[in-house]
Amino acid sequence: MDLSRPYWNMEVEPKLNTPEMRELQNEKLVRNMPAIYDRIPLVRKRMDEAGVGVEDIRSLDDLQKIPIYGQPQMRELLMEVGFDMKKILHMLMGDMADDVYVMAATSGTTGIPTPYPVVRSGLPLMREMNNRILWRCGVRPGHKIVLAFGLSMFLAGSPTLLALEDFPGITIIPVGAEAGTERIINFTRLFGGDVLMCTPSLALHLIERAPEIMGDSVKALGIKILLCGAEPGAGIPEVRERIEREYGAKLFDAGAGAGVSCDHPEYQGMHWIADDMVYYELVNPETGKNVPLQDGATGLGVFTTLGAEGSGIMGIRMTLGDVHQVFTSPCPCGKSGFRYRIVGRTDDMLKVKGVMVYPAQIKSVVESFIPRTTGEFRILLDEPPPRVVPPLKIRIEYGEQVREGDLASLTEEVQEKMHRMVKIRPEIQWIPPRTLPRSDKKTQYIEKLYEKK
Amino acid sequence: MDLSRPYWNMEVEPKLNTPEMRELQNEKLVRNMPAIYDRIPLVRKRMDEAGVGVEDIRSLDDLQKIPIYGQPQMRELLMEVGFDMKKILHMLMGDMADDVYVMAATSGTTGIPTPYPVVRSGLPLMREMNNRILWRCGVRPGHKIVLAFGLSMFLAGSPTLLALEDFPGITIIPVGAEAGTERIINFTRLFGGDVLMCTPSLALHLIERAPEIMGDSVKALGIKILLCGAEPGAGIPEVRERIEREYGAKLFDAGAGAGVSCDHPEYQGMHWIADDMVYYELVNPETGKNVPLQDGATGLGVFTTLGAEGSGIMGIRMTLGDVHQVFTSPCPCGKSGFRYRIVGRTDDMLKVKGVMVYPAQIKSVVESFIPRTTGEFRILLDEPPPRVVPPLKIRIEYGEQVREGDLASLTEEVQEKMHRMVKIRPEIQWIPPRTLPRSDKKTQYIEKLYEKK
Repeated sequence: MDLSRPYWNMEVEPKLNTPEMRELQNEKLVRNMPAIYDRIPLVRKRMDEAGVGVEDIRSLDDLQKIPIYGQPQMRELLMEVGFDMKKILHMLMGDMADDVYVMAATSGTTGIPTPYPVVRSGLPLMREMNNRILWRCGVRPGHKIVLAFGLSMFLAGSPTLLALEDFPGITIIPVGAEAGTERIINFTRLFGGDVLMCTPSLALHLIERAPEIMGDSVKALGIKILLCGAEPGAGIPEVRERIEREYGAKLFDAGAGAGVSCDHPEYQGMHWIADDMVYYELVNPETGKNVPLQDGATGLGVFTTLGAEGSGIMGIRMTLGDVHQVFTSPCPCGKSGFRYRIVGRTDDMLKVKGVMVYPAQIKSVVESFIPRTTGEFRILLDEPPPRVVPPLKIRIEYGEQVREGDLASLTEEVQEKMHRMVKIRPEIQWIPPRTLPRSDKKTQYIEKLYEKK
Repeated sequence: MDLSRPYWNMEVEPKLNTPEMRELQNEKLVRNMPAIYDRIPLVRKRMDEAGVGVEDIRSLDDLQKIPIYGQPQMRELLMEVGFDMKKILHMLMGDMADDVYVMAATSGTTGIPTPYPVVRSGLPLMREMNNRILWRCGVRPGHKIVLAFGLSMFLAGSPTLLALEDFPGITIIPVGAEAGTERIINFTRLFGGDVLMCTPSLALHLIERAPEIMGDSVKALGIKILLCGAEPGAGIPEVRERIEREYGAKLFDAGAGAGVSCDHPEYQGMHWIADDMVYYELVNPETGKNVPLQDGATGLGVFTTLGAEGSGIMGIRMTLGDVHQVFTSPCPCGKSGFRYRIVGRTDDMLKVKGVMVYPAQIKSVVESFIPRTTGEFRILLDEPPPRVVPPLKIRIEYGEQVREGDLASLTEEVQEKMHRMVKIRPEIQWIPPRTLPRSDKKTQYIEKLYEKK
């Protein structure tokens, strides 16, 4: 095995995001569409309802004729069949439902988990995808991977244990998030884990707790590579910088599809590494129309499997509800694959004079002004979202060292950058540092003034 | 695949516990011993210290020349090397330490977990063993297995997920004990799990909680097979009867080596199903001498791998510290493999006039008198164990319907059975039902009067 090679798969990965690859995608889709239509009742239903026949799909572009499918549609279907999972699995996978090997699912905090079944025949693809990601993060034979995502039914839990199975020479230390901070730290140290897979918030939490638990900074753990995902964070400059500095390690962001960030010092988004397996589109969440994949374009990330399986998490035009911004220009890191970063979720969307705005975009601008801001802010809404009567009002904490007299020019700078990055010019209300309530849970960036009226 | 065949492995399992198998074990051991001695530093150290050379092991019987190895010795070794796991792994496995695929370990409630590494080359054996066990429990293609042991580093957790990998046609629902009762019940129901793998105490707990969580008895879950282990319980008549009745399911007991109970209505112990992979001995915990494997014999269960791997949980003469009673006569169920039941742990041992007595043995006799006893009892010790000045004093709760006048004859009956089963004639103090404190944790059966003096 050539350990110095840049990619896990030297045959496919150099071709990612090339016209040749697009040819291949086109060919695969058209070839497999009849089988997918035949085998997958849900695809058949969706195509029939849209009046789209198999013969109408003669190229990748024709795919847009099929409406996208996401969690809202899935929840509706679940209610329609009275939460009969057997029926749902059959709808999602046809006869392959008998071939489900591991049943993964969302956590189901809303009461009803969304199933993400792993089929036996899909394991090789899952493994190939994971191997590409691990290789790009610098994982090599001999590394010891601490698996600290929840080991339960989540995709990053038990299925990952299986997905890692044919990466050569690694040791897995399956501590699991459920084991708690203390055991994660102790077992990592005791068994010499040097790669840590977990959520960014857990990575941050370990920084705080390490001194108390092991009487030393988290750096003493000896982690060399962090692979974070399952929530935003690893793409936020402030968070990245802190984690990399405190651990003395490289941090990679993965997830929300088949992607992983690169090792360029500045975050470039996640490289999409699976063109040969999954076709990626951007879709305008309002109109449902395709957004051309051009540098800087924004839209819902929509996935279509190119295999005859056509099932599971990446079926035909499935979306996780994440809004992506893509970058198709070559990455300064030199690696293949266009990049995407998550800028929000459709649930979070605001519309200001026709412009779609997501809190994560605002956050990213506010944080880019640290230490002149603390990074904390709130979006003030007078009416229920998504529509906002301009200007959008944002309350921002200024930094500890900032004087009142500096605020006027700071306002202009922030507005300028907002306009450049997010295409809006907000009204800014400054407040002193440490005024906004902090939370160790997910911060709510929106203040619903209309509820307090 | 012949779904009606009695064993997973029709070539090996019919030969379990036969002279032919013993021949095969003998041959394997003698053939592999030189390689094991060469490859495994810990085996080399132990044999060197005992003055036993490879040339001294010319048959299974010669194995007794090597002293047994258990948790106390392992803890000593851990301290000796300053808890350096890398060193320990090398001692346990030699170069195979580089081939560790999943690091399993004990929970480490004592602070330091004992490592039970799973090596890549050991996976096929692990899978073969698990497949034999599952097949004997009636698991067949199409079954949906709820994995509700802790999914963390315990042997019954993440390693089991991997061990199940080549059993055909099953679906695994990896909920994990950590997910909590409510989610275990909800996910089992939602995804149609029909096989439940968990500790007996969790199985009991689900009975209590089911009505409140799903508004129905646990039977409504539709579990057909329970595979319990990791603690005693599934072998206790009262517990068995309750679980089988409440679930409307078959309960199987597995663990503490390579065993699983059969489907005979009365518990017959666990059939040892891995003669071709692991050689089983009984050893007198006091003298260290072998106990002949005869019907009813008692001793420490001691395991020796017969593969060239010679590593991990089943190395050379390793013991988990469990005291077994074996049954070598044919089982009324008709299946192959001698049986063993766990009667206690070396830590629990009492010695009454030279007779080794374990609380679990007392328990089993007291419970056999339900409903004339409640099953609850305490052993009263005037001096620290293990030595007890006879007679052993036992306080037992009589049953609700028992009258004072019946106690004299009941005393005689209990003493008679104790003498027959445990070889002691205890002094019995009767107390009214519901006098002894109940606990949902592990009950302490010993009352240390000497500490109260």
